Amino acid sequence: MAASAPSSSGGEPDPNSTNLRPPGSSYDAWCGVAHGCTRKLGMKICGFLQKNNSLEERSRIVSSFKERAAKNLLSCDNSGGEARFSRTETDFSNLFARDLLPAKNGEEQTMQFLLEVVEILTNYVRKTFDRSTKVLDFHHPHQLLEGMEGFNLELSDQPESLELCCFLSTGLDIVGLAGEWLTSTANTNMFTYEIAPVFVLMEQLTLKKMREIVGWPVGEGDGIFSPGGAISNMYSVMIARYKFFPEVKTKGMAAAPRLILFTSEHSHYSIKKASAALGFGTENLILLRTDERGRVIPADLEAKVIEAKQKGYVPMFVNATAGTTVYGAFDPINEIADICEKYNMWLHVDGAWGGGLLMSRKHRHKLNGVERANSVTWNPHKMMGVPLQCSAILVRERGLLQGCNSMSAGYLFQPDKQYDVTYDTGDKAIQCGRHVDIFKFWLMWKAKGTVGFEQHIDKCLDLSAYLYNKIKNREGYQMVFDGEPQHTNVCFWYFPPSLRGLPDGEERRERLHKVAPKIKALMMESGTTMVGYQPQGDKVNFFRMVISNHAATRSDIDFLIEEIERLGNDL
Amino acid sequence: MAASAPSSSGGEPDPNSTNLRPPGSSYDAWCGVAHGCTRKLGMKICGFLQKNNSLEERSRIVSSFKERAAKNLLSCDNSGGEARFSRTETDFSNLFARDLLPAKNGEEQTMQFLLEVVEILTNYVRKTFDRSTKVLDFHHPHQLLEGMEGFNLELSDQPESLELCCFLSTGLDIVGLAGEWLTSTANTNMFTYEIAPVFVLMEQLTLKKMREIVGWPVGEGDGIFSPGGAISNMYSVMIARYKFFPEVKTKGMAAAPRLILFTSEHSHYSIKKASAALGFGTENLILLRTDERGRVIPADLEAKVIEAKQKGYVPMFVNATAGTTVYGAFDPINEIADICEKYNMWLHVDGAWGGGLLMSRKHRHKLNGVERANSVTWNPHKMMGVPLQCSAILVRERGLLQGCNSMSAGYLFQPDKQYDVTYDTGDKAIQCGRHVDIFKFWLMWKAKGTVGFEQHIDKCLDLSAYLYNKIKNREGYQMVFDGEPQHTNVCFWYFPPSLRGLPDGEERRERLHKVAPKIKALMMESGTTMVGYQPQGDKVNFFRMVISNHAATRSDIDFLIEEIERLGNDL
Repeated sequence: MAASAPSSSGGEPDPNSTNLRPPGSSYDAWCGVAHGCTRKLGMKICGFLQKNNSLEERSRIVSSFKERAAKNLLSCDNSGGEARFSRTETDFSNLFARDLLPAKNGEEQTMQFLLEVVEILTNYVRKTFDRSTKVLDFHHPHQLLEGMEGFNLELSDQPESLELCCFLSTGLDIVGLAGEWLTSTANTNMFTYEIAPVFVLMEQLTLKKMREIVGWPVGEGDGIFSPGGAISNMYSVMIARYKFFPEVKTKGMAAAPRLILFTSEHSHYSIKKASAALGFGTENLILLRTDERGRVIPADLEAKVIEAKQKGYVPMFVNATAGTTVYGAFDPINEIADICEKYNMWLHVDGAWGGGLLMSRKHRHKLNGVERANSVTWNPHKMMGVPLQCSAILVRERGLLQGCNSMSAGYLFQPDKQYDVTYDTGDKAIQCGRHVDIFKFWLMWKAKGTVGFEQHIDKCLDLSAYLYNKIKNREGYQMVFDGEPQHTNVCFWYFPPSLRGLPDGEERRERLHKVAPKIKALMMESGTTMVGYQPQGDKVNFFRMVISNHAATRSDIDFLIEEIERLGNDL
Repeated sequence: MAASAPSSSGGEPDPNSTNLRPPGSSYDAWCGVAHGCTRKLGMKICGFLQKNNSLEERSRIVSSFKERAAKNLLSCDNSGGEARFSRTETDFSNLFARDLLPAKNGEEQTMQFLLEVVEILTNYVRKTFDRSTKVLDFHHPHQLLEGMEGFNLELSDQPESLELCCFLSTGLDIVGLAGEWLTSTANTNMFTYEIAPVFVLMEQLTLKKMREIVGWPVGEGDGIFSPGGAISNMYSVMIARYKFFPEVKTKGMAAAPRLILFTSEHSHYSIKKASAALGFGTENLILLRTDERGRVIPADLEAKVIEAKQKGYVPMFVNATAGTTVYGAFDPINEIADICEKYNMWLHVDGAWGGGLLMSRKHRHKLNGVERANSVTWNPHKMMGVPLQCSAILVRERGLLQGCNSMSAGYLFQPDKQYDVTYDTGDKAIQCGRHVDIFKFWLMWKAKGTVGFEQHIDKCLDLSAYLYNKIKNREGYQMVFDGEPQHTNVCFWYFPPSLRGLPDGEERRERLHKVAPKIKALMMESGTTMVGYQPQGDKVNFFRMVISNHAATRSDIDFLIEEIERLGNDL
C-alpha cells in the first residue's frame, strides 16, 4: 500500500556539493558549519533551487518525504507500480514574487518555496553530521568579491532574475524568513572573515549600498550591523566622542570638558539611555523643543548651544530624528546641519524608523540633508519588512569605528593570518561575536531589488494617507496634529458619542484619556485587532496607528475604524 | 501518473487552532504574529506534534507535499487508486533523544522531526495571511504562569516526557535549531509582556533557574538576555557603577571620583571595551597578573587595590573570569570575593565560556564562590550547544538593572495598561526591542533537562582530557601549561622534526612561531579540519583546541593529531 523508499538513482557526483567533515571539536564544528553553510548560502545560493542540485541528495530528501508520508500521513495507494524517481527538477521559472503570500491564492506557492528551503536545510543538517567529507573549501575575499561560478554578491536596483538568484521576491517577508532559517542553520558569528566569509562580504557590500543611498560619495565611510536601533544610536555617541576627544578612550570622561548632547523632546529614549550609559549623564542631554508636528525647532537648538557654551560647556553631538516614534516626524536636517557646522558638532540622524524612506524617490525628500550627517542609524527591520534583528549604524568618516572600539586583542586578530585581515570586523564592534543579521536583508534586497523596497514603502505611506483622509473630517475623530502625516504614523483621538457634547475642559480631557486604553482592552479581549495608544506631553491618550506591512489593505483600515466605533460607541 | 491532490477531509474544527486576523497595520501585524505564535509556541507547544493537530490543517500541508512531490520530485505511479488521507497521526512516542543526530543512523528520525517542525511553521505562515480569524487570544501573566491546558513553562532537571513536551531532546542542537526557526517565524520582540507574553515568561523562569544554579537563595535577583557576552559584561560594569554612584546616571562620570576596575591579563577584551565605552578609560582598568596556568593571583589584586587607594582612586569593580578564552582558566573566586568584601568592590564573574560547568556536578567546583558574586555573565550559546545568540547577565540584587537603565519612556510603558506591567522588560535593557534569544534555550532545557546539559558538559571535558593525555608525552608536542586543563581548552605546540634538534633559543622560537599558522593554512587549503592558534604574552603561536560539541568523538581527536603531523612533518 505505502510506497517504498526508492533507492538512490546513483547520479554522478555533484560538483557543487558542500563538503563537510564532521565536527572534530567545537572549533571544528562551528567553523565547519560556518564555512559550509556560508559557502553554500553564498556562492551556491543559485544552485539551491536550481538544476544543479545533486540528484542523489535530492533523492535522499525525497525518500525521507516519501517514507514519512507512507508511514504517517498519506495512504498513497501505489500498488500499480514501484515508486521511482523522475528526473524532473523543481522549476521556479514560472514563479514570481507576486505569486507568493500575501498574494491572493499564494499559499500553495509559498509553501512550495518554503519546503524547498527546508529541503536545503535538512540536507545541510544531515551533511553536518556526515563524517566522510571535508570541512571547508576556503576562498579569499577577493575571490568571493570577484564572483564565483557566475554568482556575485552585488545588490542591484532591480529584482534579479532566476538566472542570478533563485530566491523569489515576496510581498512580505517570506524571503526574509527563509534567510533567517538559513542563518540559524549556519549558526555562525559575524566576527572574522575566516569564520563567516560570505556573510562578512555581504555586510560590507550592503553597508556600502546603504551609504550610497544616504548620499555619501561612492558610498564612502564605514558601518556595522548592531543588535538594534538603541545600540546603533549608542555607537553614534561613542564615535562622536572619539572623534572630538579620542583620549577619553584611554583616560575616561575626566579627560574631556563637560560635553553636551542635544536631541528632540520627541526623540527615541535610546539617546537618553546612551547618555547615561556612556558617562555623559542624562542632565547633559538637552531636549529640544518641537513644533506642533513634532519637528525640532532649529532656533531652539542654536539658542541652547549658545547657552551651553556660555556656561563653559562643550556642545558636541546633535541627534536629528528621521521619523519620530510617536508622530513619525522628520526633523529639518539641513537647518540642523547648518548649526552643527557652525558650532563644530557631530550630526547624527536617527533614521531607525524613517530611514527606509530613503528607498523611495517619492518620499526621500523628507530626509533632505541626511548626506550632511556624520552618522546615520537605519533599521531595515522596522520599515522594510526585514525580520528582526536588523539595524545598521553608518559612519561617514572611515576609521573612526575601528579607532573607537579596537582593543587589538592579539588572540583574535592575528596579523599572521593567511588572508587579508582588514575584512575582520570583530574589532570595530562593542560586541565580540555578532549574530548574523545581514543575510536575510541581503537576500531580500537581492530578490526584491531596491525598487521592491520602494514599492513597499510607497504602499505603506499610501495606506496611512488613506487612513488620514478617512478620519480627518469624520464625526467623532480629531487628529493629534494637523496635516498629512510625514510617515505612516496616524495619531488621533476618538470621541465616543457621550463625550461629543461636553465642553472642552478638564472633565472631557480626563474621560478622553481613558477612551483609547479602554477600546484597546476591549479589542484585546475580543481578539479582533490591535492598535497602539499613548499620551505625549500634555496630550491625553490618543491612538497611534503605524503601518509598515504592505500586506495591509484599505479594508483592514476600514475594519479598524469600524472596530473602534463598535467598541467605543457606548463608552 | 502523478497523484492528484486530495481534497480536504473536512474534519471538525480544531479547538486548538490559532486564530489570527490579518495584519491590518504594522502594529496589528507584528502583534498578531507575536501573540499568535508565542501562544502557539507556548501553551500549545505540546499540541504541535501530538494528536490534537487538526486533521484539516494537516491535510492541507500533506496535499502541498503531495502536489509538490507529484509535480516536481516523485513519479509516484498511483494509477491503482485515488490518493486519500489516512487518519493515522504522526506518533513520536517511540522516538527518543538518543535517536536523533548525532546518533548513529539518526538521520531519518532527525529529518522527520525537522519536517514536523516545518509543517507547523508553514502552517503558521499560512495562517498569518489568513484573513478570517482573530488576531489574538490574550492571557494574563498569572494565567500563563499557572499553566494552561496541562502545560507549564517550568524547567526541570529531568528531560520531560512526551506527555508534557513533544519536542524531543537531541544530542546536539536539533531542538535548538527548531526553536530558532520557530522564533524567527514569530518575528517578535522581547519588549513588553503584551507583545511577547510567553517569551517574556520563559525568560523570567529561565533566568531564575540560572540564578538558583549560581547559588543565590531561591533564585533571587534579576537578569536579562543580551546580544552576547561582551554586552553582558558591559552591563555588569554599568550596574556596579549605578550601585555605588547612582548620580552618574544623571550627572555623568564627573560626579564620581576616579574609579578603578580590575581584571586579569588573560580576561576577555570585552571588559576593556566596556571601560572605554562607559567613560572609565582603559587606563583605569588594571590588569592583574596570573599564575602559570592563567589564573589571577589574588595577592596581586590586593596589592593593586591598595596602590590605587593610596593614589586616591576608588577601586570599584573586579572581574573574575570563569573560563578564560585562551587557557580556559578559572580564577579563584572565593579568594577574590574575600578581597572584594574587604574593600567594598563589586564582584563580577565572567562565565561566558565557563558558566556552563555550573550544570555539571563533577565540574562546578571550579566556580566555587560564584554565589558570592554580585553579577554573573553566562553564555548558553558557548558551552551548552544553544544556537547563537544566547547570553545572560545575572544580577544578585533586584532593582539595580531597572534603576540603572530605566528612562521611563511614557509612550512605551503606559501605567494604564490592562495587565501587570512589571512583566515588561524593555526598561531594564540598554536596548529597546530585543531579539528573542530565550525560546531555543528554554526549549532545549525543557527537552534535555538539566541532566542533559550536564552530560553534554561532562562529555566535552572528557574529550579534552583525552586529547591532553594523548599528547602530553607524545614526541614533538609540548603543552603550553602543565597539568590537566580546567576547561576544554587544550593549548600546545607542535614541533616539526626539523625543529626538534634545535637548542632552545631565538631561532627555534621564531621558527616555532610560524608552525601553527602554516599548519592551519595547509588545513584550510586541504579543507580537512581546523584548529585555532594564537600567541599569548611572550609565548609564540600555539595551537588551542576547544571542544564544546559533544558530537565530537575520540576518533575526531585522533584525526586532528594525524593531520597536524601529516601537514607539519616537513615544515
